[in-house]
Amino acid sequence: MIPHDTHLQIGSLLFDGLDQIDLTGPFEVLSRIPNATHRIYAKTMVPVRDVKGLRLAPDATLADSPQLDVLHDPGGFGQEAAMDDEEILAWLQKQVAGAGHIFSVCTGALLLGAAGLLRERRATTHWASFHLLPLFGATPVNERVVVDGNWIFAAGVTAGIDGALWLAAELRGGDAARAIQLYMQYAPEPPFDSGTPERAPRPILAQAKRAVAGITAQREATARRVAARLGISAPNL
Amino acid sequence: MIPHDTHLQIGSLLFDGLDQIDLTGPFEVLSRIPNATHRIYAKTMVPVRDVKGLRLAPDATLADSPQLDVLHDPGGFGQEAAMDDEEILAWLQKQVAGAGHIFSVCTGALLLGAAGLLRERRATTHWASFHLLPLFGATPVNERVVVDGNWIFAAGVTAGIDGALWLAAELRGGDAARAIQLYMQYAPEPPFDSGTPERAPRPILAQAKRAVAGITAQREATARRVAARLGISAPNL
Repeated sequence: MIPHDTHLQIGSLLFDGLDQIDLTGPFEVLSRIPNATHRIYAKTMVPVRDVKGLRLAPDATLADSPQLDVLHDPGGFGQEAAMDDEEILAWLQKQVAGAGHIFSVCTGALLLGAAGLLRERRATTHWASFHLLPLFGATPVNERVVVDGNWIFAAGVTAGIDGALWLAAELRGGDAARAIQLYMQYAPEPPFDSGTPERAPRPILAQAKRAVAGITAQREATARRVAARLGISAPNL
Repeated sequence: MIPHDTHLQIGSLLFDGLDQIDLTGPFEVLSRIPNATHRIYAKTMVPVRDVKGLRLAPDATLADSPQLDVLHDPGGFGQEAAMDDEEILAWLQKQVAGAGHIFSVCTGALLLGAAGLLRERRATTHWASFHLLPLFGATPVNERVVVDGNWIFAAGVTAGIDGALWLAAELRGGDAARAIQLYMQYAPEPPFDSGTPERAPRPILAQAKRAVAGITAQREATARRVAARLGISAPNL
């Protein structure tokens, strides 16, 4: 826990083609952390579209960002292009070097991997990309929220909400996190039990795997290529 | 359930000062409903800011919207101003008259109330505004998701995710909803048990009530004034 009188700079990375709730789920928590400034940073001030078209705009550019105390790195299919974007990778490297806490959501982990930042970390990501983590030197841990020192990894998409509450507790204590949880009435009651590969009915999982097969193959090819660039010897997958 | 070959027009209302996750939580589901177009509508094309500053942009204006099959009405403190906005109220009335399904999230219910649309409905809203529903002629039901015919009401903020999955199942069947749930890895694990007034530790609830007291008083005054305008005889609260 950080002293309450220390003001925190919290920043979320925004990029084209992200999965919006990787950003907006945590936003609901991060924007309410006491004595903190939370802002959204992107390469330019032009609004981007998430993978399904939602238009989101940043508060400032990467170039205009301060050193962050807390870095929030979302995922979504746009992370593929970002993995080859030198400006984004350099920004992540610089911010991680100075930040006290790093918070990765979904395939944001692959982006951190492309920046060479996952070596020897315990990490998680979206279930469909989970098997790619070792390509970046990480140890995959099949939990919804994985805490590795000052790093917090949330699994796919909505796991970012749970991860953000963990982070809030890390930063400002459990009661601050509980107050935010109450405000946002976060007592989830999913109407179905289909939120993980282990829980989903088999035909639903089979259909979902078919639906993401193309994207998963592309992610694997990118991951192998980037791992080679980083000089990480990829294990046989 | 609607025939799968019937294309659906799904629309979300965007207004200044909404609580962003009332829109973005459901967005993750609504944008993935098979054979449907999901778009965001606002008074103008200028990006708005949510109550904590997130900049969101619409796809089209209210004036350019088609008749929707599914209307999604989010809440957040900006609903206060919207309750006196004739353009928004008239749009809601027109859309509700023609829509097959109405989906209210959080204090979006108060906005529907201001449009005179809550009379004799079973409804819910954010816990801090729950007691205001009778002012609009509604029967408050203290559940996370309340289904009243073709209307679905979600309680506060994150309840919109659960409500959207209910709605997806109503529209396209349970398996379609389960597939979306698996994609978004929605198997929530809140790190604390503090998501409702009934579950939150008492000091946290007391603190939260103090924090929203001013907003709640303002909401009550607005609700009474609007109820009088609508000619609803408000019960003693």
